[in-house]
Amino acid sequence: MTLAPELAVTRWFNAGEPLTLAALRGRPVLLHAFQMLCPGCVAHGTPQTQRAFELFKHSDLQVIGLHTVFEHHDAMTPVSLEAFIHEYRLTFPIGVDQPGEDTPIPVTMQRYGMQGTPTIILIGRNGNIVHHGFGQQSDMALGAIIAAELANTPG
Amino acid sequence: MTLAPELAVTRWFNAGEPLTLAALRGRPVLLHAFQMLCPGCVAHGTPQTQRAFELFKHSDLQVIGLHTVFEHHDAMTPVSLEAFIHEYRLTFPIGVDQPGEDTPIPVTMQRYGMQGTPTIILIGRNGNIVHHGFGQQSDMALGAIIAAELANTPG
Amino acid sequence: MTLAPELAVTRWFNAGEPLTLAALRGRPVLLHAFQMLCPGCVAHGTPQTQRAFELFKHSDLQVIGLHTVFEHHDAMTPVSLEAFIHEYRLTFPIGVDQPGEDTPIPVTMQRYGMQGTPTIILIGRNGNIVHHGFGQQSDMALGAIIAAELANTPG
Amino acid sequence: MTLAPELAVTRWFNAGEPLTLAALRGRPVLLHAFQMLCPGCVAHGTPQTQRAFELFKHSDLQVIGLHTVFEHHDAMTPVSLEAFIHEYRLTFPIGVDQPGEDTPIPVTMQRYGMQGTPTIILIGRNGNIVHHGFGQQSDMALGAIIAAELANTPG
Repeated sequence: MTLAPELAVTRWFNAGEPLTLAALRGRPVLLHAFQMLCPGCVAHGTPQTQRAFELFKHSDLQVIGLHTVFEHHDAMTPVSLEAFIHEYRLTFPIGVDQPGEDTPIPVTMQRYGMQGTPTIILIGRNGNIVHHGFGQQSDMALGAIIAAELANTPG
Repeated sequence: MTLAPELAVTRWFNAGEPLTLAALRGRPVLLHAFQMLCPGCVAHGTPQTQRAFELFKHSDLQVIGLHTVFEHHDAMTPVSLEAFIHEYRLTFPIGVDQPGEDTPIPVTMQRYGMQGTPTIILIGRNGNIVHHGFGQQSDMALGAIIAAELANTPG
Repeated sequence: MTLAPELAVTRWFNAGEPLTLAALRGRPVLLHAFQMLCPGCVAHGTPQTQRAFELFKHSDLQVIGLHTVFEHHDAMTPVSLEAFIHEYRLTFPIGVDQPGEDTPIPVTMQRYGMQGTPTIILIGRNGNIVHHGFGQQSDMALGAIIAAELANTPG
Repeated sequence: MTLAPELAVTRWFNAGEPLTLAALRGRPVLLHAFQMLCPGCVAHGTPQTQRAFELFKHSDLQVIGLHTVFEHHDAMTPVSLEAFIHEYRLTFPIGVDQPGEDTPIPVTMQRYGMQGTPTIILIGRNGNIVHHGFGQQSDMALGAIIAAELANTPG
């Protein structure tokens, strides 16, 4: 198993205060990396994450969106992202991945070795990466993966 | 919790020999009640059950379809059902619910107090009814319910 | 252009009296050939025909469904078809294609040289076959084909 | 009938040179008004317009997209629109509606009295507005409306 690297986020939406994996240790974390102009994210991955947020809201799962802009940087600024979040009625916490230095790939995206967007990652109670999927994932499989991790005894 | 009543089946498709809940005790059982001319079954419930059968095929979940004809009896005979199973490429075991006496409701449907089709029931390892849902169920919720039961230690 | 052969129908549903192309000459006719256990018909072709029936109900288009059973004959009898029509809320006229002699292919299906189901055929005001499509057809293309024929001056 | 007001466009994408209704007189024009962060546009109206562009490409129909930003102006700049067009593989000509003075509503949107996005307008060969629809439109109805206008004799 691989320990999930910490998030590097420059700004949060839908979050009272910054979220860190360190502080969330002991709880499963569903991390959805997306770009607001990625068609597969908008049509599938992002609404799926919203559904997971709603389905598991009474569990101790923490859902986090991560805006991992690696192309069209001028087109997907935080100002545009904020309007996107509003228009698509997204209510789960969403962080802006920290821009990379000398590379278009942002920092968290690099740390996780993500191949693109949408990416869905499940981090277990112990902080390890339980699932790392690129592209479209079925709702049934995602529900099962989350529930299996929730069933693990904390601690 | 309610102990799941035994199945009353007059004929099986896609099954080597008759299945009974008694013999399956210790394994979770997903029971999908449908009618081949029920639009909500054909469009949603039955393909969803096929997806569950494929997703969990490496687990010890037993998926069972049950043809619970309670209307249009002459239109949904076993001969028609067999063609339906062939055309829709269904590969999970499917039983024909035993016709009722002095009632259009078949026997297993009565025993479970099902309200109609599609119905999806999850029977736990201990033989109890864990979930009983009538109508459309989301794939994510169903995946989660099954995975949670699979995580229970047998015995 | 090919003149559309006459229909050979043994029984009608949703029709006051038998329909013939001869009597319909001068009006465009949309002919949808299907089988009640053909998944592509149930999911796409038949509901599309119902949508066309509703969209063009104030025009002089005549919509006709044709149950062209060429396989699983025992499974798709008129009794089963009647329940299918009821359950799927089909309201356009539907005829049962006359069974073939010494062949599983019914008579009208043979006359038109249909390759399978679903098939959608548009017959023009002059009785010629304007469009003959096998398989899935887009709603936009079908709407356009029908409207173009409706725009032709009768007579 | 109402004569369609001229377009007021500050920038074009997918167009060799600026398009005007004056120059297009004699040809039917399909005008799709959208915003890149309008969920109903992205999921339905804009891909539908792309389908119409492809279906009728051998006719003399002119398809035009119009980016009518009336909210979140900072979030939907031409820079963001250009990335949107690229990512969604839109190939029909798209104009940016001229910003309004003392109003968030852009100029062409005002001239047509559009209620919001998505809006689909069909302008006839004679320059009149043939159809003006706000919200979701069925593919079949749109195909029919366009084909009916195409059938009108030019001149």
